[in-house]
Amino acid sequence: MRLRNKTWAKPLIEAHPEMILVRPEKMPGQWQTRFAQDQPLYLEVGSGKGQFIVAMAQAHPDYNFIALELQEAAIAMILKKQVALKLPNLQLVLGDGADLTDYFADGEISGLFLNFSDPWPKTRHEKRRLTYRDFLRQYQAIMKPNALLQFKTDNQGLFEYSLVSMNNFGMTFDLVSLDLHHDKRVTDNVPTEYEEKFSADGGRIYELVAHF
Amino acid sequence: MRLRNKTWAKPLIEAHPEMILVRPEKMPGQWQTRFAQDQPLYLEVGSGKGQFIVAMAQAHPDYNFIALELQEAAIAMILKKQVALKLPNLQLVLGDGADLTDYFADGEISGLFLNFSDPWPKTRHEKRRLTYRDFLRQYQAIMKPNALLQFKTDNQGLFEYSLVSMNNFGMTFDLVSLDLHHDKRVTDNVPTEYEEKFSADGGRIYELVAHF
Repeated sequence: MRLRNKTWAKPLIEAHPEMILVRPEKMPGQWQTRFAQDQPLYLEVGSGKGQFIVAMAQAHPDYNFIALELQEAAIAMILKKQVALKLPNLQLVLGDGADLTDYFADGEISGLFLNFSDPWPKTRHEKRRLTYRDFLRQYQAIMKPNALLQFKTDNQGLFEYSLVSMNNFGMTFDLVSLDLHHDKRVTDNVPTEYEEKFSADGGRIYELVAHF
Repeated sequence: MRLRNKTWAKPLIEAHPEMILVRPEKMPGQWQTRFAQDQPLYLEVGSGKGQFIVAMAQAHPDYNFIALELQEAAIAMILKKQVALKLPNLQLVLGDGADLTDYFADGEISGLFLNFSDPWPKTRHEKRRLTYRDFLRQYQAIMKPNALLQFKTDNQGLFEYSLVSMNNFGMTFDLVSLDLHHDKRVTDNVPTEYEEKFSADGGRIYELVAHF
């Protein structure tokens, strides 16, 4: 969802170059230098307000995480949390999911998360969906062979579309859940803000885990 | 679902060799000789009481249809309908979906339907599910290249399983619907008896259309 601009966002971002980079094009292959430890690197594309990626970074100190978000107002909210938490295994990026191959080297990413991306329901906006083939091509380039892509959404149309798109791209499915919050196979789900609200209202959450 | 035995089933089947064959192993490549016209041949595996395949045969006189069913009591109910209707483009088979390559020649089938198959929910029964890879291998053998397989179910677990199984087998998805009866893209759905009852009770119907 689109957030209102925040006047404090830009100054906060400029004050913390150790925590956040803006459209970082000199980093491919260098990301481990930004973390306290050299460990597998996980990327969330479209982090929103960051509840998911912050919880993941807290739960998995043995992995490094990058939150990528296109909206300044949203990434600034994650940065605010990170300024307080100072997690050594979390870095933020203000940037575009369409430019991933500018930001990351081939095979640099050990796992990728897409959570509740904008469904762009109109057919003419298909190319903007984060599971459109042009995005998949970028994910494939920056991910290690057999690394997992985890995709969650509450949007039925986007999930139907993504199953077909990811299958047609040649991805191999590892798990499909049509009701994640009542799925006995999944015991380690980390919800986003949006997911908690939606699910509390009785909505179904869909999940696809797959690899290239 | 399992039906009670019907004492009239076997005599009726024996009285209509022009409409039904039992475990037909001499027919591969010869099926068109059983129909009034030589036209594309569609197969339903697990026809139950036959509402779907009979409606399909009525709606599409320019295609030939075969109803395959393992239960004598069920196929006899379809036969009863066919004795009354005498559809020239419908043939019945009492036989096993696991033996398809005994019944049909390579590439003899132009389309295949799986409707509300038994979900066999226990993991140890995975091999009995009609979307298990051993069945897929048989469908692939008897279907023409790019022929469509249409799979419908109300069972969430079976649908989740089948999406993964058919993807992992290398099938290409053409359509995924997570709520068929409210899907604006699908305008020509032919419901089964079971589907009508289940959907009237508010249940969701899932559909996957895919090809090898």
